[in-house]
Amino acid sequence: MASGSVSTPWNEAHRLTTLQHAVVASEAQPLALESGTTLAPVSVAYETYGTLNAEKSNAILVCHALTGDAHLAGKYSPEDTAVGWWDTLVGEGKALDPTRDFIICSNVLGGCKGSTGPSSLNPATGQPYAMAFPVITIGDMVQTQARLLDALGISQLKAILGGSMGGFQALDFAVRYPQRVRSVAVVASSHKLSAQAIAFNAVARFAILNDPQWQNGDYPPEAPPQVGLSTARMMAHLTYLSEEALEAKFGRRRQNPQAGDHLGQRFDFTSEFAVESYLAHQGQSFLKRFDANTYLYMTKALDYFDLAATWGEGSLLQALARSEARFFVAAFESDWRFPTACSQAIARALRQLNRSVAFVELPSTAGHDAFLLEHEALNPVLGGWLQQEEEPQP
Amino acid sequence: MASGSVSTPWNEAHRLTTLQHAVVASEAQPLALESGTTLAPVSVAYETYGTLNAEKSNAILVCHALTGDAHLAGKYSPEDTAVGWWDTLVGEGKALDPTRDFIICSNVLGGCKGSTGPSSLNPATGQPYAMAFPVITIGDMVQTQARLLDALGISQLKAILGGSMGGFQALDFAVRYPQRVRSVAVVASSHKLSAQAIAFNAVARFAILNDPQWQNGDYPPEAPPQVGLSTARMMAHLTYLSEEALEAKFGRRRQNPQAGDHLGQRFDFTSEFAVESYLAHQGQSFLKRFDANTYLYMTKALDYFDLAATWGEGSLLQALARSEARFFVAAFESDWRFPTACSQAIARALRQLNRSVAFVELPSTAGHDAFLLEHEALNPVLGGWLQQEEEPQP
Repeated sequence: MASGSVSTPWNEAHRLTTLQHAVVASEAQPLALESGTTLAPVSVAYETYGTLNAEKSNAILVCHALTGDAHLAGKYSPEDTAVGWWDTLVGEGKALDPTRDFIICSNVLGGCKGSTGPSSLNPATGQPYAMAFPVITIGDMVQTQARLLDALGISQLKAILGGSMGGFQALDFAVRYPQRVRSVAVVASSHKLSAQAIAFNAVARFAILNDPQWQNGDYPPEAPPQVGLSTARMMAHLTYLSEEALEAKFGRRRQNPQAGDHLGQRFDFTSEFAVESYLAHQGQSFLKRFDANTYLYMTKALDYFDLAATWGEGSLLQALARSEARFFVAAFESDWRFPTACSQAIARALRQLNRSVAFVELPSTAGHDAFLLEHEALNPVLGGWLQQEEEPQP
Repeated sequence: MASGSVSTPWNEAHRLTTLQHAVVASEAQPLALESGTTLAPVSVAYETYGTLNAEKSNAILVCHALTGDAHLAGKYSPEDTAVGWWDTLVGEGKALDPTRDFIICSNVLGGCKGSTGPSSLNPATGQPYAMAFPVITIGDMVQTQARLLDALGISQLKAILGGSMGGFQALDFAVRYPQRVRSVAVVASSHKLSAQAIAFNAVARFAILNDPQWQNGDYPPEAPPQVGLSTARMMAHLTYLSEEALEAKFGRRRQNPQAGDHLGQRFDFTSEFAVESYLAHQGQSFLKRFDANTYLYMTKALDYFDLAATWGEGSLLQALARSEARFFVAAFESDWRFPTACSQAIARALRQLNRSVAFVELPSTAGHDAFLLEHEALNPVLGGWLQQEEEPQP
């Protein structure tokens, strides 16, 4: 199931990685979901970077965001042009150092990048689960992460970390399994989803659920609800960018001004402004890499996330009091999807509980996407904080 | 054409109004559009409140926003449950006082509320224009407003005012016809559309243009592209509200919590959170009152709006230097669609030009919709500023 993976050595010169698979739930040991139902079998796709030490004390679990995957860093082959989604944070001397630590990243439960989800085959029918897949929660994802750690023989993490939805998982893990993690880093995230974010998710789901090609979820893989999924992605993508980033990158620039009048105006409904073409491309390329039903399930899991309600009878203090780890909470200045106030609320509660917490607001004009882009700002502070664990506390 | 309308008396007790029509362009005198084509005939739907004085010096033109109409205030009959869209600003002692001034509001060119637009019959075919309607601009709307004033025998306005897209028209009118207006009020608006706003419009149009029911615009009136138009409206509506307003009004409240588990979670994809039901209702009810093709044309006119490019070779100062009026510029604190900085840019340029300009940022948590809601804040400052015109300037 996970044989051999624990000793994959990291070669900084080649930076090669392999997608691996582990079965973490079977009919005999099904996953008990928060909805009350069970799920089996459950397979998890994951990658590891570096070597687990003899004490098994250097494992770091990285959790991905809404449309992310297990491919955290590196390439699958030297010819690959693409690298993992947080490649800039992984490497010798970086925040996540595979020459020192054993870094794990898995595709979440319910995902479409190798782990069991709505696009996986339902063993009962031989067809994709589609809408027969149970609604899952961040807690269910975290339970699945814990089972992967069991499979890898890791009882306690040095650290868990994640940005955005990955931060949700890190927070839930910290209060669900207080003794299984020593350090928790929550980046560009929140302890609950806001009404505004739920509302944007609702519009995205409306577009997918009402696309005639959706067909109650039973679309053939070659004919997905393209319009609905593209619309959802274009809108969501806009919420990941700041107004100033869009203004700086595109402004009112025209795609092909010589085609129009003296102001470059074409007086038609084709994609005319550069920002329109950019967005249309984002919507199109997303179709190649993401499944529409999975998008429904992921956004629903986001909507349900409310740490205080789930773990503290509505009190964030009570919920976080369960945790025993030290915390790192980072926000980015121009992020309006998860504004700094969201991170501050977490940091404030932890301080009230006398927990060790490092809070930083990092300067950025990139919006929510900053957590994927601002590696120069993030590497030293996150890396420094991770290292401090090994030094004696004052 | 506009006979009788000029002397409609305003009765504050009854507050009744009538939708009127004027033909402002004919085959003999077609409207020359900024795109280079001409349009005829053009009919304008409008309402008036109060009485034009003998000097014809007390006319105030109010311009509506994206989905607004000519029905500014009052009711059509005593039994009406609905009132006009800025009813709270119109009345004796209000900012817009029909016992003192002659107030006009017309549906814009390209609209679907009585003025000539994509849903009007194309005389050449006897069918709705649909996508055969020419792409129009804010300038084209303003030209049409001016023709309506001609029809009403009004050579100079006491004031022009508008919120959001209405503010675009007020700004364009001020520089296009400097001698035809003495006071200009621009509320929750900007001198150009931002890249972010263009991008949101692009997503809205994508949803409509790719709805199979759109049929290249030739949908039957009873079967419009409902999914596309609802999606567009739901998303746009979200951009009119602030995060804090959504949080205060809905938060994470469930629609029908007893139907779910102890947290009210239903674990399905129905509208579960109150904010989801609210948005779905907004999308649905919009279908009854707005035409999908018109939405395409209105958003395109917004996208093209750039006062500096059109009138100042890229310089806002040069553009505004054409104007001769006194200005009132108002922004609302929580408006992220047209943030205060947009209004400040206009006010700063006017101050540099030594123009009379009153700039106010009004406190509100309502977001962009504040311009329709914050009448208690707006009435005294807007009303006071309008009145000052009659007092001698220092």
